[in-house]
Amino acid sequence: MHCSLLLFRIIPPCDPTADDKLYHICITAISVVIMLILAILARRTKTGYRQKGLQGLLSPVNFLDHTQHKGLAVAVFGVLLCKLWGLIVSPNPLPFTEDTQNKQNWVILGVFYYPALYYPLLACGTLHNKVGYVLGSLLSWTHFGILVWQKIDCPRTPLIHAYYSLYSSLPQIACLAFLSFQYPLLLFKGLKGTEKHSATEDLSSSYYRDYVKKMLSKKSTKSSTSRTDKPKLLQRITDAVKSYIYTPEKAFRFPLKLAVSAVVSFIVMYQVGLLLIIGVVPTLQTARSGVDEDVANLLAGFKIILSPDKQEVVRIVVFYMWCVEVCYISAMTLSGLVNLAMLMRSMVLHRSNLKGLYRGDIYNVYNCQRSIRASRPALACWMGYTSYTAAHVFFGMIIQTLVFFLCLLVAVFLVIIPILHGQNLILFQILWSMWPFWLMIILAVLIQHITARFCFIKKTAGTRDLNNRGNLFLLTYLLFPVNVLIGVLLAIWRLVITALFNIVHMGRMDISLLNRNVEAFDPAYRCYAHYLKIEVSQSHPVMKAFCGMLLQSLGQENKSALRSRDAEEGIQLVQQEKKQHKVSSARRARGHWQLLYTLVNNPSLVGTRKHFHRQTSESFVNGSLNRSTKQGSKKEAE
Amino acid sequence: MHCSLLLFRIIPPCDPTADDKLYHICITAISVVIMLILAILARRTKTGYRQKGLQGLLSPVNFLDHTQHKGLAVAVFGVLLCKLWGLIVSPNPLPFTEDTQNKQNWVILGVFYYPALYYPLLACGTLHNKVGYVLGSLLSWTHFGILVWQKIDCPRTPLIHAYYSLYSSLPQIACLAFLSFQYPLLLFKGLKGTEKHSATEDLSSSYYRDYVKKMLSKKSTKSSTSRTDKPKLLQRITDAVKSYIYTPEKAFRFPLKLAVSAVVSFIVMYQVGLLLIIGVVPTLQTARSGVDEDVANLLAGFKIILSPDKQEVVRIVVFYMWCVEVCYISAMTLSGLVNLAMLMRSMVLHRSNLKGLYRGDIYNVYNCQRSIRASRPALACWMGYTSYTAAHVFFGMIIQTLVFFLCLLVAVFLVIIPILHGQNLILFQILWSMWPFWLMIILAVLIQHITARFCFIKKTAGTRDLNNRGNLFLLTYLLFPVNVLIGVLLAIWRLVITALFNIVHMGRMDISLLNRNVEAFDPAYRCYAHYLKIEVSQSHPVMKAFCGMLLQSLGQENKSALRSRDAEEGIQLVQQEKKQHKVSSARRARGHWQLLYTLVNNPSLVGTRKHFHRQTSESFVNGSLNRSTKQGSKKEAE
Repeated sequence: MHCSLLLFRIIPPCDPTADDKLYHICITAISVVIMLILAILARRTKTGYRQKGLQGLLSPVNFLDHTQHKGLAVAVFGVLLCKLWGLIVSPNPLPFTEDTQNKQNWVILGVFYYPALYYPLLACGTLHNKVGYVLGSLLSWTHFGILVWQKIDCPRTPLIHAYYSLYSSLPQIACLAFLSFQYPLLLFKGLKGTEKHSATEDLSSSYYRDYVKKMLSKKSTKSSTSRTDKPKLLQRITDAVKSYIYTPEKAFRFPLKLAVSAVVSFIVMYQVGLLLIIGVVPTLQTARSGVDEDVANLLAGFKIILSPDKQEVVRIVVFYMWCVEVCYISAMTLSGLVNLAMLMRSMVLHRSNLKGLYRGDIYNVYNCQRSIRASRPALACWMGYTSYTAAHVFFGMIIQTLVFFLCLLVAVFLVIIPILHGQNLILFQILWSMWPFWLMIILAVLIQHITARFCFIKKTAGTRDLNNRGNLFLLTYLLFPVNVLIGVLLAIWRLVITALFNIVHMGRMDISLLNRNVEAFDPAYRCYAHYLKIEVSQSHPVMKAFCGMLLQSLGQENKSALRSRDAEEGIQLVQQEKKQHKVSSARRARGHWQLLYTLVNNPSLVGTRKHFHRQTSESFVNGSLNRSTKQGSKKEAE
Repeated sequence: MHCSLLLFRIIPPCDPTADDKLYHICITAISVVIMLILAILARRTKTGYRQKGLQGLLSPVNFLDHTQHKGLAVAVFGVLLCKLWGLIVSPNPLPFTEDTQNKQNWVILGVFYYPALYYPLLACGTLHNKVGYVLGSLLSWTHFGILVWQKIDCPRTPLIHAYYSLYSSLPQIACLAFLSFQYPLLLFKGLKGTEKHSATEDLSSSYYRDYVKKMLSKKSTKSSTSRTDKPKLLQRITDAVKSYIYTPEKAFRFPLKLAVSAVVSFIVMYQVGLLLIIGVVPTLQTARSGVDEDVANLLAGFKIILSPDKQEVVRIVVFYMWCVEVCYISAMTLSGLVNLAMLMRSMVLHRSNLKGLYRGDIYNVYNCQRSIRASRPALACWMGYTSYTAAHVFFGMIIQTLVFFLCLLVAVFLVIIPILHGQNLILFQILWSMWPFWLMIILAVLIQHITARFCFIKKTAGTRDLNNRGNLFLLTYLLFPVNVLIGVLLAIWRLVITALFNIVHMGRMDISLLNRNVEAFDPAYRCYAHYLKIEVSQSHPVMKAFCGMLLQSLGQENKSALRSRDAEEGIQLVQQEKKQHKVSSARRARGHWQLLYTLVNNPSLVGTRKHFHRQTSESFVNGSLNRSTKQGSKKEAE
């Protein structure tokens, strides 16, 4: 009775006051109107200096930008991902229709509909215009308000679990809340005039110059301390743990695509974890609470008699089901934690890889010499990188949960429960009955290591050499069969460690799961390698620092030209003279920049230059390049 | 009836005329006697120059030797492995006892008994003495004769399958036949005086000098042709295929341990293949031939009704069982072929690794800088290397067969049979019903690649750069959800390719199955890396070439001293003078050798030397070292 009540507790389909269908039709119309307003606005302000106009409206995200405020783009991508997730999980993906027969076609439609729907949320911030911010605020408030209203109206839905829909929309609510807060903030800043125009003025940002300065000022004490021959075990463990903890560095910012990837990965983890927990655990709990004496009869039908007492049988079955539940939740949690650690580690590795490539240290990153430049496959990989990361995290987490669950089940039912109850110790009995075998194996291993240490290696004058070769060969021959048995254990260990490593790192694209010679056959790593190529060739901070300097000098020139309008005629002449001077300096700077561009893309050329110019800006970069190539060659020599 | 006849066809236990128990007792006694004779012989001939005496008798195999005739050692290891295999497979492992209760203890005893039993077969060849060869011939003939006699007497045994025992002993018979042929040949050579004393005179062999000469004469045209930027696809495929085919090179010989490993791996493949085929296929065939109308009733009991006609049901079941059988045999064959290919590839890689390390090209082989010298773990790994190889091939083949079998089953029952019969096309129906999804995926991929090629990449003056950045960013944003779906497919592909690669390479120790940064966590690869260290540090051909030259000069000196006894007194004085001269030349050579040794172990030092001596021998090595470091740095620079 209790069981059937729980199993068939029907949650009535809930229709929110803000009907989803109506809401989507309205919001689509509003979005179209907003885009039209923005387009008109863009056309009107196109003539203005440094406004991007219609062109800018069609590409609101600059993915190759380190300095822009990443919040808007990250939040929109987060919302988009949540929508995609809902599209796949829910039986009727789009709100326009109740048709669940052709779900597939509606999913395909939704895959293109949602990016378009949320596009205005991005586009409103592009123009750096007060009207844009107002529209953005209104739009994000509408989205946010309606979503929250719907969730308050209908917290319980029949889909999967009463509260699944509510929990699943939490990241979306968070992202929309962020947008609803960010747009008014931008508007406020715009009104106060303190807005930084960060999106358009990427190049004039001080970040790139800071990066270059930091690179030059940094002393290379670290590399010298790491050169000590053998670090202690404790030190090595600490280093290993530290390499999994991401600490932000002031003079390094992630490219937008990596920031989006990280947030998107985190949201995927949350969604997968939620689905795995809420989709399975309540069902297990219901089944557990529904166990009654019928189970004993059922088991007796299969000739499984756990206990003569039926109450006892029910108790045992309930206990076993509880164990399964605990295993499942532990596996899920473990998988989530592993993926979080992997995400952190990825961030650390991304940073070191990017820095390495900026230095021209290509060999260390790719394990082979590659040309860092745009190509067709590289660009295709670059476009998909963020999405692929999300997909890999999703897939990795599912595989991990499955494998961890199976391993935990085996561990609990073959090891822990037998030990606790002191019965069914089959595994231990088998292992214990094999004690002569284990003894032989251990003795053989010990003998080989001890004799290797004390009989066969001779230390003379700081060098080590073989000693007693005859006995060494004899021992090798005699232990041949034993070593074959040890080898089988090693092979099993190899299988376990390889499988475990690959499963744990399944969700990470920044390392290859294959052997170093065939790394590129791993599609995920190949994609990552290509992604890095585009990122480094198109947004090298040193290059950007110089582009920025060049633009700044042009800007100053323009400003002075502007100011000259207000001045007297006589002064204007002098200004023109100055202008000419500026132009020539700009030309020289352009020349330097071209030289620099060549050098950035070909660090190996630096060494062939006869002399370095003495100019500040020049020596700046030359120095850094010089240093970087030195570091590169030093690393290679290690 | 037919079925039960086949299933319970009892093979009567066969007692060969040459009873195994008696034979083992006799042969053990004979072996002990032979060892005693050899020991006495060794003691008597100990005083002779260049004879190793008792010490040599206790270490008949010089594993660190490239030039000795490898046949004897390889054959004895082969016999030993077959015996170990029989020990584990058969229910009563040792012939002394019928006790099958304590099999484990008898296995442990056998693991140490058999190496001792076959030891004299190796030891007889050590003394390079006619008596030794005669004893060796007799012993090997006895072993060979009795084994063949037993197999002719009792070709059919009840173990696993009637002829399993016979087939299983074929490699053993082959190895013993080789020994029976080799010892008389050695005796014949010894009588004719053409024996080369290859085992003791490793250093005086011309191989090492040939190696050095070859290394110096070889032109580096190959490396210059391989530098062309992008080889054609056909060329690359040909190269890949070629890298799997081992062609012997005149100026390179494998160390004994690798030769033994290769043969032992091959024998393991044969034995595992035989066991997998003979242990399973006849049972399947028996079961297939025993299918009758009872099966239809049985299936009907499980509510599975394949056809209303019982004869039809029998035909279907027999056909399915035949399919399973075909899958199993195909999987086995595939696994065998894969392992053969891997063995060949390993040989190629061993050679290139050894050559690389001889050149001092450590970074390329290990992917990090390591000191090539003897250490405790390295020595322990070196001792076990051959055995571990065998164990890994064994384990790899079993895993491969299992996995291939499962994959083939899925392929046959979900793909091939449905296509052939035109029914149960579930998989195809699912895939076909998803055509809009596949179309979307394909279109999205195509769009990204085509736009990347034609819209977003601009070729100007030989360089490639991004173009239309705005549209690129827009496309990236809009295709984000589609790319997530593509990413899931990529992740599945990644899982498949990683699993397949690792399973195929499971039996190979010379590559790590892990990512390049954690290579050393793979126990098999770690062992291989250590093995190479010992091999290279202890048997560097250039070092051996010089040791050989040094010994030769000493030998000439001795010979001349010997000859001087017959000469007149006056000449003797001159000879003594000459001798002194020789001694000083030997000392100088020793000095050179020490220098060489230092340089071989520290190739980086060569560059720091102020001048190269003009002496032939010196310039020989310096040149080669110089060349090798150049090659090394060139490779690093690639």
